[in-house]
Amino acid sequence: MKPSLPSGTRDYLPKEIELRDYIFSTIAKHYQLFGFSKIETPALENLSVLNNKYGDEGDKLLFRILNSGDYLNKLSDEELATKDLKSITPKISDRGLRYDLTVPLARYVVMNRNELEFPFKRYHIDRVWRADRPQKGRYREFYQCDADVIGSDNMIYDADCILLFDRVIKDLGFLNFTIHFSNRKILSGLAEEGGFADRFQDFAIAIDKLDKIGEQGVIAELGSKSFTESEIHYIQNIIKIDGDVSEVIAQLEKLLETNQVGIKGLAELKEVVQLVQNQLSEGVTLKINPMLARGLDYYTSSIFEVTIDDAQMGSVASGGRYDNLTESFGVKDMPGVGISFGADRLYDLIKAKQENTINYKNAILVANFGTHLSSDAFATTQMIRNLGIHSEYYPSNTKLAKQFTYAEKKGIRYLLMLGDDEVRNGIFTIKNIETGDQTSYHQDTFINFLQNL
Amino acid sequence: MKPSLPSGTRDYLPKEIELRDYIFSTIAKHYQLFGFSKIETPALENLSVLNNKYGDEGDKLLFRILNSGDYLNKLSDEELATKDLKSITPKISDRGLRYDLTVPLARYVVMNRNELEFPFKRYHIDRVWRADRPQKGRYREFYQCDADVIGSDNMIYDADCILLFDRVIKDLGFLNFTIHFSNRKILSGLAEEGGFADRFQDFAIAIDKLDKIGEQGVIAELGSKSFTESEIHYIQNIIKIDGDVSEVIAQLEKLLETNQVGIKGLAELKEVVQLVQNQLSEGVTLKINPMLARGLDYYTSSIFEVTIDDAQMGSVASGGRYDNLTESFGVKDMPGVGISFGADRLYDLIKAKQENTINYKNAILVANFGTHLSSDAFATTQMIRNLGIHSEYYPSNTKLAKQFTYAEKKGIRYLLMLGDDEVRNGIFTIKNIETGDQTSYHQDTFINFLQNL
Repeated sequence: MKPSLPSGTRDYLPKEIELRDYIFSTIAKHYQLFGFSKIETPALENLSVLNNKYGDEGDKLLFRILNSGDYLNKLSDEELATKDLKSITPKISDRGLRYDLTVPLARYVVMNRNELEFPFKRYHIDRVWRADRPQKGRYREFYQCDADVIGSDNMIYDADCILLFDRVIKDLGFLNFTIHFSNRKILSGLAEEGGFADRFQDFAIAIDKLDKIGEQGVIAELGSKSFTESEIHYIQNIIKIDGDVSEVIAQLEKLLETNQVGIKGLAELKEVVQLVQNQLSEGVTLKINPMLARGLDYYTSSIFEVTIDDAQMGSVASGGRYDNLTESFGVKDMPGVGISFGADRLYDLIKAKQENTINYKNAILVANFGTHLSSDAFATTQMIRNLGIHSEYYPSNTKLAKQFTYAEKKGIRYLLMLGDDEVRNGIFTIKNIETGDQTSYHQDTFINFLQNL
Repeated sequence: MKPSLPSGTRDYLPKEIELRDYIFSTIAKHYQLFGFSKIETPALENLSVLNNKYGDEGDKLLFRILNSGDYLNKLSDEELATKDLKSITPKISDRGLRYDLTVPLARYVVMNRNELEFPFKRYHIDRVWRADRPQKGRYREFYQCDADVIGSDNMIYDADCILLFDRVIKDLGFLNFTIHFSNRKILSGLAEEGGFADRFQDFAIAIDKLDKIGEQGVIAELGSKSFTESEIHYIQNIIKIDGDVSEVIAQLEKLLETNQVGIKGLAELKEVVQLVQNQLSEGVTLKINPMLARGLDYYTSSIFEVTIDDAQMGSVASGGRYDNLTESFGVKDMPGVGISFGADRLYDLIKAKQENTINYKNAILVANFGTHLSSDAFATTQMIRNLGIHSEYYPSNTKLAKQFTYAEKKGIRYLLMLGDDEVRNGIFTIKNIETGDQTSYHQDTFINFLQNL
């Protein structure tokens, strides 16, 4: 039997996992620096928690677990004969795999709220599952890298989000990128001023496609949705709003002069801008983009999106502020703000930069020159490990070229030659696989060499 | 709606995850030192890979995923009406959650063998799922921490396994523990010499219970399974084999003098003993225990089990050598040896030792003395983070005692007081929450203080 993998899933080879873990640990390092604590929730959740949280489309994409034992016993023969999935599925499946980390966070906060300190700052880097159609770069099992602050409406946390984008993406080696920032209330205010607040949804869906279909496409879509010519003209004008942070703010202040919700949104946005403006790294652009509409039904205040300046790719990170995380579980007053990094996109971008380079580690392969030397070689391997250095003894006395290749493939930088002559004379000969250099040491100078690695 | 968790699963609070990650990272550190590379496989596997690998009992404990879309469409009305789970289940469920990390490893090695260097040394610390009856300390979703070497029958790797037990468990803070070691061929040889090789299974099942039911219980069970009096007498004698490593070996050599498989087993065991004997840490006992029978159908050579000397608990780690990992997937010549740490048991033992102590981190909470100081406090928080120190600014101007408690609960050691006087005079006052000490610094000495953390 030839084994296979479920479509939309993948194995990670050692060097792939190394790069991926480097991304995860970089993100986690900054989350920790900013005071976020790691948590974990189960992969399995009750479907009563997951259902109706992601819209009809999302419900279809949930992976459902068949109940254990005689899973048909809650169904009468008649019910079963109907083959009506809507009534059958809930009776044969109580649990599913989580679809994101946000609904589980809401459940976690509700269930553990007496144990948590608020504002509760948590990060969670873990797998989620969606029964989506697999395609290049889209998997059915993938990771999300979320951080959220729950239980505070203070804008210092929105400012922290912007600085987290800055620090993480800079630390991952990207030189130039743009943090797009807006506030959902600004878009609402603009819709009110334009006279189409009643068609906000249509408006937002159309401008959300601006990147893909361009201004003409957006206008065509709006025209087909009963927007008047003067409304479309107004929208063309607000799409054109551009400039640096203070220029865009000035234009918005003029447009929203008398609009209450718009003024509130602008005040929140300006508070955040004021906090971060002297803290951004070189090469990082903060761009106020009032047309940002992502997470429409969810975000109620700050909205973020990050793009790498020269990459032909969508956003690599995003987030926003919401009024109440735990509403659907009946707990009030849990406003929050959260962000997420797109690990798969960052992985692809970084991988493309490093293609075909071997990342050598300061590790040592003890070459095998025959079983009569095994005891000495094995003991030397332990001695190296005891100094905290990755070391292993090659298990068979094959030709050196093969042992050399094994080290190279594993990214082990040094080969330790311990042949008969060396053992007899207490000599340790080290070959640097990367440079080809070879050096011989006596016991004490060898230990010096190891300690300096 | 009040949310709930599926039975047998759990949430981890921040301080629980800290302890768990400390255990995982300690294990991973030593796996890496010994030359193991991390890999990852999907949580989802095809049921064609998982079925028939864990016996009838195991098959029942697999979590099966309901197929997407119209999952009943492969079933005729007649088939459905039978309610016959054996024929229905395979038609509505193609995928399941992995039950362990070993079968996925076999699949991984077969599918990726052209990309891997052999001997392939991998470690994998990840979740597995079993639809077992939940009970105290037994979960339906839990972690395994495995390392295996695939593609070599060299005993240096069995010696590495013993040293890994030694290094990891010592590093986790346990002072005295015992590594039980045997070889499956020794038990086979003893059964041949005792004349009951034909009833090996019965024999092994009975002595496996020695710890639980005692010698009298084992004798009673053997009596009920057609073992003769002289056979039972022989078994009573081999159960009594005891002493230090060389004494037990001497007794076994005598008993197995003319037994081919037994001699082979002893030779393998002695080779491993010789390699590790000068490498074990103080407080660690290597005990040859020929009655070790675990993983009966699976292990064919070395068998390991580790117990903590003063703990009322079963083994905290185990492992063994097998002839061929990938047989069920049609690939030959993949002998290997592997070990696994019981993370949940280690967690419980370490937690019991540290109960009620707060692990303070060198982190700084910047206290909030009013929004008019927010800009200064926020900028100071960034300055501290830029030095690599975890820092956060408390979001509201509540009384200091509450801010103090927040820091204490999060294990933040220092509170930075930045009130009106301090800001005006450029003073930074630090309170050590653990000791109660309070010190004031000027800008430059404050940076000194931070850099020394």
